[in-house]
Amino acid sequence: MVVLLATSHTDEVELWRRLLEKRLPGVELRIYPAIGEPSDIEVALAWKAPHGLLATLPQLRMVCSLGMGVDHLLDDPTLPSGVVIARLVDSNMVEQMSEYALYGVLHFHRRFDVYERFQSEHRWQELPLPHTAARRVGVMGLGEIGADCARKIRSLGFPVSGWSRTPKSLPGIQCHTGKEGLNAFLADVEILLLLLPLTERTAGIIDARALGRMPHGSYLVNLARGGLVVESALLDALERDHLAGALLDVTAVEPLPPDHPLWTHPRVKITPHIAGLTNPLTAIEPIARNIERLMAKQPVTHAVDRERGY
Amino acid sequence: MVVLLATSHTDEVELWRRLLEKRLPGVELRIYPAIGEPSDIEVALAWKAPHGLLATLPQLRMVCSLGMGVDHLLDDPTLPSGVVIARLVDSNMVEQMSEYALYGVLHFHRRFDVYERFQSEHRWQELPLPHTAARRVGVMGLGEIGADCARKIRSLGFPVSGWSRTPKSLPGIQCHTGKEGLNAFLADVEILLLLLPLTERTAGIIDARALGRMPHGSYLVNLARGGLVVESALLDALERDHLAGALLDVTAVEPLPPDHPLWTHPRVKITPHIAGLTNPLTAIEPIARNIERLMAKQPVTHAVDRERGY
Repeated sequence: MVVLLATSHTDEVELWRRLLEKRLPGVELRIYPAIGEPSDIEVALAWKAPHGLLATLPQLRMVCSLGMGVDHLLDDPTLPSGVVIARLVDSNMVEQMSEYALYGVLHFHRRFDVYERFQSEHRWQELPLPHTAARRVGVMGLGEIGADCARKIRSLGFPVSGWSRTPKSLPGIQCHTGKEGLNAFLADVEILLLLLPLTERTAGIIDARALGRMPHGSYLVNLARGGLVVESALLDALERDHLAGALLDVTAVEPLPPDHPLWTHPRVKITPHIAGLTNPLTAIEPIARNIERLMAKQPVTHAVDRERGY
Repeated sequence: MVVLLATSHTDEVELWRRLLEKRLPGVELRIYPAIGEPSDIEVALAWKAPHGLLATLPQLRMVCSLGMGVDHLLDDPTLPSGVVIARLVDSNMVEQMSEYALYGVLHFHRRFDVYERFQSEHRWQELPLPHTAARRVGVMGLGEIGADCARKIRSLGFPVSGWSRTPKSLPGIQCHTGKEGLNAFLADVEILLLLLPLTERTAGIIDARALGRMPHGSYLVNLARGGLVVESALLDALERDHLAGALLDVTAVEPLPPDHPLWTHPRVKITPHIAGLTNPLTAIEPIARNIERLMAKQPVTHAVDRERGY
């Protein structure tokens, strides 16, 4: 079995090599662009691989995403249709995402955004604090990550609503579904967390209309994909004081261009796509298991349904 | 029964009156400074009452603190010795304190302090992220609040150590005790949370020596009392890069004077004593129950041991 590694994180290539050779000694690893004979390659481990690359591998059977999302694969129009795409689901990354989500909720709930400004003014002033049990948090996307976030936020005493494309049922979470459930979901959410995959259906889902449904003075935390949000509508909602703040780990264009207005908006906090970082030390295991399943002709886990887009 | 309310939060006086009259209809409430006949008063509800006031009430039997700490009462040298002092333990405030503690841990663990600086430089740069399971958090003080914080931080996957004056045992927490346990406790704690009461024994406990025991690059979160920390030693440890950052909700002098160097230190984050705010709506219940116990000649709960100071 020959596996190709094609990642934009070139600093991690040697670590992946060591881990893969140790975990799957029989497997030969090639590192893009040193592909060798293309027809040798049956599996590709990919993160933002160049479009067109995978189509040049005639014997390719599976692509393992090195990140949790697969939009970086599916937006390659030449992606061969017969190849299995596997998402990466690593409990360590789920844990990281939930940490970021909890941080975002507490940041706005406890007004650390305002206290930061007060500090710059040397101002010692207490603000009123709404009861945790009265601050509804909304989680959009109830997959592995969304469900873990919802549960952990709930356990701190926040009421939590969830929204997903297909009906879900989670203990203690008020679940909404589909287009028809979206307005009701948004209407009473004070802190909205985005944890959706980026697909044809979800691109731009947080537009002027959706933002308008959210209560006056609410907050947005996007730790999924920048493309979910119409950034001009977000800036407009912040400008009109309809939205009180946003914490964005992802933006439509990454890296965020130095002259982009999101960098300097006083009520926007930016982090550079770090909510869930792939750690090869923990990600190697689910990836190696999927390679073993493929070799044993067993179904791989977390295979992507291309129709739904994740 | 006549109860005196003496609080520096004068904006909450009418709310306390409404709540107390509703919960304990037989009780007469007087609001400082309108004391009336001093010998009528058997109970005082106090937050930062003027020193000397309580000594003028000859029939005083109990003082209920309106905050979780009682250092604001015990530092009054005229405090009558025969009077019962009751701490306020309100599960809502415990929840608030744990929210703040979790926020502080995540703030430093996930490097939001550094990403804030990056944003000001329009810099999109990922930093390495240590595994949550490799980041030891230390909780000093394992009372109601410390125990709740330790449990919640542990549940996110952080290894947690605790330190307390008397031996404690908490599931999953490495517990250290007393002076002899302090050095070992501090030596492997990367994020230190202070949740101790301020007493003769704990004043200045975080001095140059204690800070020196903490690992290079560690963080301090103080959400208890400013007097626990020797601020000159803290500033020195930050200056020497021994400590990587501090989040302080409390300072030796409050409000923090406008020209104090803590306001402007680039690695210090300040909030104005808001980690746990007394909410009369929830605090009324434990206070009313203690008044009822006193009237029924039953022992009050959370009575202070003046010798130990809390």
